[in-house]
Amino acid sequence: MKQLILGGARSGKSAIAERLADESGCEVLYIATATVGDGEMEERIRLHRERRPDHWLLAEEPLQLAAILTEQAAEGRCILVDCLTLWLTNIMFMDDGAHFQSEMDKLLEILPDLPGEIIMVGNEVGMGIVPMGEMSRRFQDESGRLHQNIAAICDRVVLTVAGLPHTLKGEAL
Amino acid sequence: MKQLILGGARSGKSAIAERLADESGCEVLYIATATVGDGEMEERIRLHRERRPDHWLLAEEPLQLAAILTEQAAEGRCILVDCLTLWLTNIMFMDDGAHFQSEMDKLLEILPDLPGEIIMVGNEVGMGIVPMGEMSRRFQDESGRLHQNIAAICDRVVLTVAGLPHTLKGEAL
Amino acid sequence: MKQLILGGARSGKSAIAERLADESGCEVLYIATATVGDGEMEERIRLHRERRPDHWLLAEEPLQLAAILTEQAAEGRCILVDCLTLWLTNIMFMDDGAHFQSEMDKLLEILPDLPGEIIMVGNEVGMGIVPMGEMSRRFQDESGRLHQNIAAICDRVVLTVAGLPHTLKGEAL
Repeated sequence: MKQLILGGARSGKSAIAERLADESGCEVLYIATATVGDGEMEERIRLHRERRPDHWLLAEEPLQLAAILTEQAAEGRCILVDCLTLWLTNIMFMDDGAHFQSEMDKLLEILPDLPGEIIMVGNEVGMGIVPMGEMSRRFQDESGRLHQNIAAICDRVVLTVAGLPHTLKGEAL
Repeated sequence: MKQLILGGARSGKSAIAERLADESGCEVLYIATATVGDGEMEERIRLHRERRPDHWLLAEEPLQLAAILTEQAAEGRCILVDCLTLWLTNIMFMDDGAHFQSEMDKLLEILPDLPGEIIMVGNEVGMGIVPMGEMSRRFQDESGRLHQNIAAICDRVVLTVAGLPHTLKGEAL
Repeated sequence: MKQLILGGARSGKSAIAERLADESGCEVLYIATATVGDGEMEERIRLHRERRPDHWLLAEEPLQLAAILTEQAAEGRCILVDCLTLWLTNIMFMDDGAHFQSEMDKLLEILPDLPGEIIMVGNEVGMGIVPMGEMSRRFQDESGRLHQNIAAICDRVVLTVAGLPHTLKGEAL
């Protein structure tokens, strides 16, 4: 089963995804896409770490999400990707976006056939004023497209608001 | 029947509106409110055009939405307005907003009595940080008011997230 | 009963909260958290005032929300707080945020045990592009955390879009 947990900033989307992973009954591999770039992000990563059970496996992969999913996905294993939005940022901006299209294509290609449980977290960023900067606008566009494409593949899609899950597709949480 | 399809940037709202128009069984008139101002918008318009069936009628009307709707609405015809948000931008900023109040009033006055099918697309822009600029803030306010007023008139209102329709009013999609 | 009415800018959230207060059958106390700082806010406050029934009690409290709720909450009384977002702004920025943590802690501590009806309005600000400024980003984070914490305490949580209530928790509106 594949699940996409969307939500705004501090909406509680990661906590819901973590609960789903915990309840999956599977061995859990947590894939962090964050890169430790500055103090603010370090603090967020630290808080996320504290909340996760000690027995979860952990991998950090900012860029090659398709490759690590292909390598690690297995029956009886639950992979939690937190989050797609930072991965999108990484493939758009690392090496001037040289890996953007190929990484995006690879993810959408391999995702439908992955075995086991896959839970992905994404940041809803499209419901505010359209930003003035061209790069912000492009990021908003690519984020929306990514979520549409992933949602079409997923069995369940949830929008999180104020810590509460609202199921958009699949069996209600 | 009147329908309002809301959604954030790249949420898939236009695709849902186009599907509804296609399934209406009516002759479809597509009213584009975009004005070809710069390369970025040209590219978006081109993509929208490619997706639309060839047999749809097309009209471009950036400003006088009430007038063209009054003229063109008819039983057995489905009019798709894509989108209210660009029209709002146009009436707020063209000629320093001289047409704003009168165009807004006219649309809300004629809309309830239009014959045939009317499908309108709008961009949800009110769920981000309140913008710093006074004009952006005013735009966010007017957009919210417009959507409230249109939604009160419509038989069905849908919020699109990640390509998935969530029905807020009327029969669920 | 405790209710949280969320929504974007000009989504119609205050009108829904006011309707719920009106239909409560209780004496209504309206707590305004806005401070009359500039002309734009004055105009908004004036519009809000015009819409409210004359027989409602009114209190203005920008900062010490926990204290006034503790003092005023009573069986048979409905308190409407409009809105949490301005209160959050006030405790974050007044006196350089000196009251932030203590006021936040006090509110979350006293809220579960308040008697009577409590209706709180909040602005959803987390679904747009993550803002560039550190303070805006912190505000977005604190707003999300506040809504999660309040929502966990409330019996009903509603997200308002285009004037239409979508119930996220509790009995549907």
